Amino acid sequence: MTLPLDIDSKKAKASAWFRELRNAIVAELEALEDAVAGPHADRAPGRFVIEPWDRPAGGGGEMSMLHGRVFEKAGVHISTVEGQFSEDFAKQMPGTAQGASFWASGISLIIHPWNPNVPAVHMNTRMIVTGEQWFGGGADLTPVLDRRRTQEDPDTVDFHAAMKKACTDNGVDYDAYKKWCDEYFYLAHRKEPRGTGGIFYDHHNSGDWDRDFAFTQSVGNAFKHIYPDLVRRNFETAWTDEDRNEQLIRRGRYVEFNLLYDRGTTFGLKTGGNVNSILSSMPPEVRWP
Amino acid sequence: MTLPLDIDSKKAKASAWFRELRNAIVAELEALEDAVAGPHADRAPGRFVIEPWDRPAGGGGEMSMLHGRVFEKAGVHISTVEGQFSEDFAKQMPGTAQGASFWASGISLIIHPWNPNVPAVHMNTRMIVTGEQWFGGGADLTPVLDRRRTQEDPDTVDFHAAMKKACTDNGVDYDAYKKWCDEYFYLAHRKEPRGTGGIFYDHHNSGDWDRDFAFTQSVGNAFKHIYPDLVRRNFETAWTDEDRNEQLIRRGRYVEFNLLYDRGTTFGLKTGGNVNSILSSMPPEVRWP
Repeated sequence: MTLPLDIDSKKAKASAWFRELRNAIVAELEALEDAVAGPHADRAPGRFVIEPWDRPAGGGGEMSMLHGRVFEKAGVHISTVEGQFSEDFAKQMPGTAQGASFWASGISLIIHPWNPNVPAVHMNTRMIVTGEQWFGGGADLTPVLDRRRTQEDPDTVDFHAAMKKACTDNGVDYDAYKKWCDEYFYLAHRKEPRGTGGIFYDHHNSGDWDRDFAFTQSVGNAFKHIYPDLVRRNFETAWTDEDRNEQLIRRGRYVEFNLLYDRGTTFGLKTGGNVNSILSSMPPEVRWP
Repeated sequence: MTLPLDIDSKKAKASAWFRELRNAIVAELEALEDAVAGPHADRAPGRFVIEPWDRPAGGGGEMSMLHGRVFEKAGVHISTVEGQFSEDFAKQMPGTAQGASFWASGISLIIHPWNPNVPAVHMNTRMIVTGEQWFGGGADLTPVLDRRRTQEDPDTVDFHAAMKKACTDNGVDYDAYKKWCDEYFYLAHRKEPRGTGGIFYDHHNSGDWDRDFAFTQSVGNAFKHIYPDLVRRNFETAWTDEDRNEQLIRRGRYVEFNLLYDRGTTFGLKTGGNVNSILSSMPPEVRWP
């Protein structure tokens, strides 16, 4: 497989999209901070703080963090980096037979709401270029109360429907990417899933870049609509101390997943990545009673 | 190296000692729960709850957990297990050329105090028998306030002195085991140590079992005296909300170490160990702000 001749303009289009999506999601989440009229409405609405960072070996990114009254901690990050993979890592990556050069651009977010009735969520999409090019990413939902962690819960039903539409609108095999999500976000030591699922994919290249980019945009747009909708449905529901305790314990499982299994987290931390950015996914408060 | 002819009586002596030490430490910690007259003295003193467990493949142990007014969460566990190592694991262990049979007995504890002025601590000693036999273990101190996390702090000075005496009284190379501790309990991704050190050792076999067992007992006895002493010095010191916040953030580093680096934790979790017992080391409340 060779790279398209206009790969540079494709890189520019993709990274511009990730920035545009970041801006749109930041605006949606800040609007929710403004809108809440239930619990915590007496607090000031939160605002994102954007912090740019440079990668000494090439490129950089922007961390955007919000600590608010709806969202206890939300991070929406974009980055565009380039350079050379380490020899070991290059062996694991497609398109590196002729060299270890890479370019990567993407958006990554994790949201931990205050209200235990509002599910936590993770979304990430990226474009990678080596001697080949492809997209990767996904989005998955983590309701934190056992009574809401079912496949029949309307939040989960509608989240799945949104992800399914993003796939089928672009001729993508939804069932395969849904299954990949269930398999990936699984805590083997506890024999339990992290959340209620979504989609997960990597090395996505149909041979038609425009179509793959359109799929990437659809995933982002689907997320941008469905998640704020789930927040709005739930963010004025009262919660009890027991609900909060259950949320904090459930967040411990999230920590266990990220530090024991998540490839991005463990790879990043063990190879000198930006610790603040990588660990911005950690929940703000956690309990292991 | 062949096993002593009376290895069975040595196993019995070692596992009886680990139980005796567990009982003594439990009694010391409960006495501290009774003694406190400062912060939290209005609460009821905590008591250990002992829970036995069986290992289906052979042996078992006892978890002892305390949730009290001095100790927010303390676990003091003993176990004596035997069976066959998996093929992969056997390759990493001495004395397995003729077979993968093993026997192991030990004590393991982690203590997370309420008062941020009182350091957290970890201690573990064990005897292992394969085709060879040896001891392993160590003890290390984790002050949680930056102003107390120095090599000049009296708690750390005295903890080091106690561990040094346990080594030198038994002709053991303290400097080597202190260095091993510093290297092992290190968070490479943050370029910072977990705590202020102690000792760490493995495959300890001088050729004289009685001497090695005496060393193991000295480590346990040293711990049993020095740690309660450090608690008593600090447990009536008042703390601020800022101190508590610093403690909860520091505990996050403890979680990062245990899930990213600790060989016992990651090996245990990924090979179907007792999740409750392994993760009883996790701090009760943690923050990643």
